Amino acid sequence: MKFVCYKDKIIKALNSVVKGVASKTTMPILEGILIQTNDNEIKLTTYDLELGIEYVMECEVKEQGSIVVNATMFTEIIRKLPDSEINISVNDNNLLTIECEGALYKLATMNPEEFPELPKIEVENSISIEQSALKNMIRKTIFAVSTEENRPIFTGCLFEIKDNKLNVVAIDGFRLALRTLNIPVQVNDFKAVIPAKTLNEVNKILTESFETVKIGVSKNQAVFEMENCKVVTRILDGEFLNYETVIPKNWQTRIRVEKNNLQDSFERISLISSSTIEKEKKYPVKVSVDIGKLTILCTNQTGDAKEEVFISTEGQNLEAGFNPKYFLDSLKAIDEEEIYIEFGTNVSPCLIKSVENNDYVYMILPIRLKGE
Amino acid sequence: MKFVCYKDKIIKALNSVVKGVASKTTMPILEGILIQTNDNEIKLTTYDLELGIEYVMECEVKEQGSIVVNATMFTEIIRKLPDSEINISVNDNNLLTIECEGALYKLATMNPEEFPELPKIEVENSISIEQSALKNMIRKTIFAVSTEENRPIFTGCLFEIKDNKLNVVAIDGFRLALRTLNIPVQVNDFKAVIPAKTLNEVNKILTESFETVKIGVSKNQAVFEMENCKVVTRILDGEFLNYETVIPKNWQTRIRVEKNNLQDSFERISLISSSTIEKEKKYPVKVSVDIGKLTILCTNQTGDAKEEVFISTEGQNLEAGFNPKYFLDSLKAIDEEEIYIEFGTNVSPCLIKSVENNDYVYMILPIRLKGE
Repeated sequence: MKFVCYKDKIIKALNSVVKGVASKTTMPILEGILIQTNDNEIKLTTYDLELGIEYVMECEVKEQGSIVVNATMFTEIIRKLPDSEINISVNDNNLLTIECEGALYKLATMNPEEFPELPKIEVENSISIEQSALKNMIRKTIFAVSTEENRPIFTGCLFEIKDNKLNVVAIDGFRLALRTLNIPVQVNDFKAVIPAKTLNEVNKILTESFETVKIGVSKNQAVFEMENCKVVTRILDGEFLNYETVIPKNWQTRIRVEKNNLQDSFERISLISSSTIEKEKKYPVKVSVDIGKLTILCTNQTGDAKEEVFISTEGQNLEAGFNPKYFLDSLKAIDEEEIYIEFGTNVSPCLIKSVENNDYVYMILPIRLKGE
Repeated sequence: MKFVCYKDKIIKALNSVVKGVASKTTMPILEGILIQTNDNEIKLTTYDLELGIEYVMECEVKEQGSIVVNATMFTEIIRKLPDSEINISVNDNNLLTIECEGALYKLATMNPEEFPELPKIEVENSISIEQSALKNMIRKTIFAVSTEENRPIFTGCLFEIKDNKLNVVAIDGFRLALRTLNIPVQVNDFKAVIPAKTLNEVNKILTESFETVKIGVSKNQAVFEMENCKVVTRILDGEFLNYETVIPKNWQTRIRVEKNNLQDSFERISLISSSTIEKEKKYPVKVSVDIGKLTILCTNQTGDAKEEVFISTEGQNLEAGFNPKYFLDSLKAIDEEEIYIEFGTNVSPCLIKSVENNDYVYMILPIRLKGE
C-alpha cells in the first residue's frame, strides 16, 4: 500500500472517523483505523461494534493495499506534521511508514483481515435533511436522554417520521424533550431509536451547512450518509414510550416570560440548591406564580435565595416544586427571546413551549416540596 | 455592614482575591473572604496561611462593619448577577444579604475575629518593575520548578537582584531555567526564593500592562504590591543552588536553528517516546549533530521515529540522549525565531540561548542512552 495526500485533507477524514474508535476495549484491533485503497481513493473505517464510521477520499494511490494502524497514534502524528504533502506506505516489515519533509515515522500495524466488517444495511426507509437542521435537533434534545442502563430504550432519541414531520424525542423519566421539523417532500412514516452515544458522534461530524444528510433505517440498523462519510449504528430494541399521550393538552396556569431572565434566575438559584453538604438529598426550588410575577425560592444550610421575574400570567396562581437543573437544560436549548410555560396542578408536569410555532415542547415533572 | 457597588468592579476584586482562598483545609474560615469596610472603601482579604491577598476598592459604604463569607459561593452568586448595582449588607441574623434587581440571596457568615491576620512585613529591600515583564519572567521559568517536596527550596523560583539585574531561576535537578532583566535604576542586591504556588497566583493577578508591581522582601516574607492589590507570601527557607557555577562556560558543539522547526520535531517525536506500555520506563530520544543537520531518533514498541532539522553547526559532531519534554518546555518559553544550542560532551548539560541577547539560558541534562 502506498499513497500521497495533503495534510488538511486527511486530517478532515481522520477527525470524522476517530469518533468511531473504541475507547475501552480488550480488542486492540478496535482501537485501529482500517485504511483501504480503491483505485484512486482511500477509505478509512473505524468500528467499535456499535458505531461504525467510513470516510472515502480521493488521493494519489501508488500501490493498492490495506492495513490497520492504531488510530490515536496515527492521527496525533499526522496532526502535528507540517501543512504539506505526506507519503504513507507499508514497508516489508509491515510497518506503516509516514514521511513528510524531515519527519519519518514507522508504526506497528495490525492485520486488516481481523478488522470486523461493518453491517450491511438494507435501507427500508429514509429521509434527507439539512445537516445544520439535524445538528440542531440533536443538540436540543439529547440532554434529556436517560443515563440509566436499566431502561436501555431511553438511552437513545426516538426519530419518528409521521405526517411529513420529523420528531426527535428524548425522555429520562423526569422530563421530556421534543423537537419537530417539517419535511417538505412526501416521505413514509417510520420510527427508530438511535443510541445517544451515536448521536453525540454524528453531531460532531455534521457541519453547520445546508448540505444534506440522509438518514436511512433497516430493521436493526440506521445509517447517516454525508458527502464522503457514512455512520452506521445499531438501533435500540424495544418499545419507546407513546410520548404524545403523556404530554398534557390543557393548562390551568400559563405564563409568558423573557427566556434569558428566567434562565439567569435559575442559574443563580442553582448555586444554592445544589450546594448542600448532604449531597444525595435533592433540594427542589419552589416556583410560585402570581399575577405579573414568578417567584423562585430555595432554602438550605448554605443560605436563603429568592428570585423574582416579571411575567404575564393567565389562569390561576400556582405553587410547585421543581429541580432547577431540568429548567436550565431546557432553557439553554431554546433560542427564542420569549417562551410560554404551561402548568397544571402542583403534581402535574409543566410544559415549555414556543410563543410563535410548534417546533418544540419541553416537559418537566414537579417534585413534591417538603411539608406538602 | 452595608455597602453598594457595581458588579464589574467587585468582580475584578473577587477575581484577584479568590486565588488566595484555601482549597483543601479543615478550617472553614480559610475558605472565606474577609470583607471589611473602612470609610468609603472596602477591603477584601483571603489567606491560606501561606499566601495572603488583599484588595481595596472604593464604594458607597452606608454602614461600617466586617464579616467573613464563603468565598466560592459569594463569588459565584455575584458573577451570575445582572450587570447592575448590588446592595450588600449583614442582617440581624448575621446573614450576608445580596440584593440586585429581582435577586435576593442570604448567605451564612463566619466571625471576622477568627480570620487569621496577614503577617506584617518590614520590607528591607524592594524593586519595582512592569507587570508584563514580571508576568513574562514567571511564565518562562516556573515550568522548571521541582515538584518534589523532599527538596523544598527547589519548589520555588529564586529572585536574585545582583549588579542591577533581576535574575529569576528555577531548577528541578534535570534542568534549569534562567531569565534576566536589566533594572534601569540603582537597587540593592538581595535574594528570595518564592514558592511556585504563589508565583502561579501572582501571575494570574498581574496584567499585561506597563503598570508597575513592587516586589518587597523581609527576612521571611515577600510582598507583591499592585495598585489596589497586595499579595503576601512566605519565602522558602534554605540555600538555593549557586546556579552560576553549574552552567557550562564553554561548548564543543554549537548549533543555530529555527526554533519552531525544532519545537515541531520534538512535539512529534514525543508522541512516540512517551507512548510506551511500560509507563515507568523513560525512553530518551537520541540527538545527533552533523554538519548542517540535527537528527532526532526514537525507537520503542509503538514504532520508529526519525526527525531531521536543518541547522548551522560549529565545532564537533555529537550524539547524546535527552528527555524531549525538557526541550519542549524550554522551546515553548522562547519567542525568538532562531536560537543557539550549545553542547559539551554527551554527559554534560546543553544550553539553549538567545542569538541576540543574554535574556535567558535554559540548561538540560542529558540521559544516558541504552548500550552506552
